[in-house]
Amino acid sequence: MISVWPKTGWLEKTVQAVRSVTGQGNIPLHQPEFSGNEWAYVKECLDSTFVSSVGAFVDRFERELAFYTGAKHAVAVVNGTAALQVALILAGVEPGDEVLVPALTFVATANAVHHCHAIPHFVDSCEQSLGLDPDALRAWLESNVEMIHGKARNRQTSRRIQAVVPMHTFGHPCDMDGILRVAEDYNLSVVEDAAESLGSLYHGQHTGTFGQLGTLSFNGNKTITTGGGGAILTNDPLLARKAKHITTTAKVPHRWEFVHDEAGFNYRIPNLNAALGCAQLEHLPGFVSNKRQLADRYGKAFAGIDQLELVREPSGCESNYWLQTIRLRGDGFGHRDSLLSALNDAGVMSRPVWRLMHRLDPYGDCPRAPLPVAEKLEETLVNIPSSPSLVSRA
Amino acid sequence: MISVWPKTGWLEKTVQAVRSVTGQGNIPLHQPEFSGNEWAYVKECLDSTFVSSVGAFVDRFERELAFYTGAKHAVAVVNGTAALQVALILAGVEPGDEVLVPALTFVATANAVHHCHAIPHFVDSCEQSLGLDPDALRAWLESNVEMIHGKARNRQTSRRIQAVVPMHTFGHPCDMDGILRVAEDYNLSVVEDAAESLGSLYHGQHTGTFGQLGTLSFNGNKTITTGGGGAILTNDPLLARKAKHITTTAKVPHRWEFVHDEAGFNYRIPNLNAALGCAQLEHLPGFVSNKRQLADRYGKAFAGIDQLELVREPSGCESNYWLQTIRLRGDGFGHRDSLLSALNDAGVMSRPVWRLMHRLDPYGDCPRAPLPVAEKLEETLVNIPSSPSLVSRA
Repeated sequence: MISVWPKTGWLEKTVQAVRSVTGQGNIPLHQPEFSGNEWAYVKECLDSTFVSSVGAFVDRFERELAFYTGAKHAVAVVNGTAALQVALILAGVEPGDEVLVPALTFVATANAVHHCHAIPHFVDSCEQSLGLDPDALRAWLESNVEMIHGKARNRQTSRRIQAVVPMHTFGHPCDMDGILRVAEDYNLSVVEDAAESLGSLYHGQHTGTFGQLGTLSFNGNKTITTGGGGAILTNDPLLARKAKHITTTAKVPHRWEFVHDEAGFNYRIPNLNAALGCAQLEHLPGFVSNKRQLADRYGKAFAGIDQLELVREPSGCESNYWLQTIRLRGDGFGHRDSLLSALNDAGVMSRPVWRLMHRLDPYGDCPRAPLPVAEKLEETLVNIPSSPSLVSRA
Repeated sequence: MISVWPKTGWLEKTVQAVRSVTGQGNIPLHQPEFSGNEWAYVKECLDSTFVSSVGAFVDRFERELAFYTGAKHAVAVVNGTAALQVALILAGVEPGDEVLVPALTFVATANAVHHCHAIPHFVDSCEQSLGLDPDALRAWLESNVEMIHGKARNRQTSRRIQAVVPMHTFGHPCDMDGILRVAEDYNLSVVEDAAESLGSLYHGQHTGTFGQLGTLSFNGNKTITTGGGGAILTNDPLLARKAKHITTTAKVPHRWEFVHDEAGFNYRIPNLNAALGCAQLEHLPGFVSNKRQLADRYGKAFAGIDQLELVREPSGCESNYWLQTIRLRGDGFGHRDSLLSALNDAGVMSRPVWRLMHRLDPYGDCPRAPLPVAEKLEETLVNIPSSPSLVSRA
C-alpha cells in the first residue's frame, strides 16, 4: 500500500507514540467497560419484569446522579438531545427565540435548539478550554444586541435571545465564571450542555450545576453508558418537578383517569437502561481516574514531538478527559487529515473535531459571530483512543 | 372498608367473572413475559459492549419486524411517539398543518402531531371497531373542507389538512378500506398508529402496512416490549432510508468527518433494547394466541351478565386483543366508575379508556368534528387484565 501522507517523520513518530500508550491491535476511539454489576442489575431488572417506564432503577439512578454531581435534582431521560431540548424549554426558550451556542459542538446541541423551534446563534470558542469564550461573547453581544424590557434582542434579526448553552468540549470545563457574568448582564438563561463532562469539575464543582439547568448524556461512547440515556440537572425543585412531568407525557396522577395537563414528551428512560446506568455509576470514579492517567501517559509520549501537544485541562479545572485530544501546532498545522489517515490506517481509531455548525446545511443560515478560534480549532484537533480500559491494558 | 358502589349484584358478578379467568391475587393490567431468550440476548449484547447506537441486534430486530408484519421496511426507534412524529414528517406534515386523529386515543397520538408543530383535528370513532369512523369522517370533510390546488383546506381555520392517522384501538383494526377511500378522495397521507396492534390483521394483512407509513410501540405494557422502543413501517424504500437517516442525526457516512445534512433526531433505539426485542419477537405468535384465548374465556365468563359484554374483533379482522375491554350496555350504562372501583378494590387492575383528547387542556382549542360515538365509548369502556400469561396461569 502506498502511503499518501507527507514523509515528515513526525507522523510516524506520533503513531508510535500513540501505540506506546494503547498497545497493539485495532483500538477503538472509546469502548464502554462492563466489569461490575452491569449484568446483575440488568438481570434483576428483567426478572422483575419492570423494564420500561416504571421501576426502581430509574429513581435510584436519578438519586445517585444527583449525589455524584452535587446537583439537588437529576431527572433521567432517553438521551442527551432530549435532555437539552427539555432543559431549554424549561429555561424559557420559545419558538422563534435565538439561543447562543458554540459553533464548535456536536450537532445535537444545535438540534436541541432546533427541536424547540428556536434558532441557534453561533459564537466562538476559547483556544485553551475549547469551550464558549465569554470575552468574545461579550464583545459580540455589545455590538449586536439591544436590551428591550430587560431582554436581549438581536439587532439584525429582531429576535429575542433567551439563553446561552456552554458545552464542555471533550470533558474540559468552560470558563463558567465568565459566562455566568455575561449571562447575568444580558439576562440570559444558562443551560449547560454537560453531555461530555460527567466527572469534570470547575473550581471543585461539578459541571452542569452552574446554570439554571444542565444536561448529561450516557450514549455508548460516553464516560458511562446506559445504551441510550441522558439526564437533566437542576438545583431548583420546581424545575425538577416540571422536568419529570413534561418528560413523562405530563400525566396528572390519578387512580385510573388519563389526564394530561400539557403537551408532554415521551422522554423517560426505560428502567432497563437505568439498571445499566446504576452499575456504570459505581465505576465512574475509577473510569475518570483511568482517563486522567491516560492523559498523563499520552502527554509524556508526545513530549518529543514539536508538531503537536495533548490538550490539557484548563487551569482550576479537573477534567474527565472524555476524549483525549491532540492539538496540532507549528509545523503540524495543516496536516490534520494526514495525521487522521496515518492513525486510522494503523488501526488506531481517530477523528477530527466536528465540522463547525455554521458549515452544515441545516444551520448555514443561522446568525453567527466571527469564529476565528473555532475555525482554527477545527483544523487542529484530533481525538485519539480514550477508553478507560487502556490504562489497565497498557 | 365500606364499599361505595351501588349494590346492584351485577358488579359483584362481574368481579367474580373476571376472577374466574385471572385467578386470585393482585392482577396487573398487563405484564410482560420474559421466558425465552431475553436473558441470553441481553447478556450477549452486554458482552459485546455494543449496547448503544451501533450493534447487530438493531438490524436483526428491524429485519424480523419487517418479516413478521410483511412491511417491506422497518426502522426501529426509541419509542412509539418518536416513530409517529417522524412518520408524520415523512408523510409531508409541516408546521401549521392539521392532522386528522381520533379523539379517542392515547395522548401520544396528539402529542406526536404537536411535536411536528402541526395541529390535531379530532374526529369520531366507530362503535364496533373503536377506531376512526370513515363515514363520519367523510361527512365531516364534505361540509368543512375545500380542495385548493388538490389539497384539503379546513374552511374554518384555512389550514391545510395533510394527513389522517387511524389508530387501532386496543389492537382492534380500523376500517382501513373505508379510511383509505376517504384519504384518496381528499388527498390525505395515511399514517397508521399501530402502537397497540402488533399482531393484528385486517383482511389478512398486518395493521400498519396500509398507509404510506405505520408505527409500532414496544413500551412495557405492549404485546412485546423492548423497555422503550418503537418502529416505523413502510413499503417505500426511499421513505425507509429517510426514516433511518433522520432518526440517526442525519449523519452522512464518511470515514471520519461529521457532516449532517439536515436537522435530524436522536431517535435510534439502543442495541440493548433491540436485543430484548429480538427475544420478545420469538414469542409474539404465542402471545397473540394466548391473548385471543383470553378473550374467549372472558367472553364466556361474561355470558350471563346483561349489563356488559366483551369487545370482540371487527368482522374480517384478527385482533391481537392487546387490552381486553368490557363494554357497558343497558343497565350497565352510567356505572363505569362503580365497575372500576369494584374491580380495582378487588385487586384486579382495571382502567377506563383515555379521556378524549379535546377534553385535555393542551388540546381543548383544537378543531374537532362532532364526537357522539367517542363520547359514548368514553363512558362505556373498561380495560381488564390482559397479560398473555393469564392463559397458562388460569
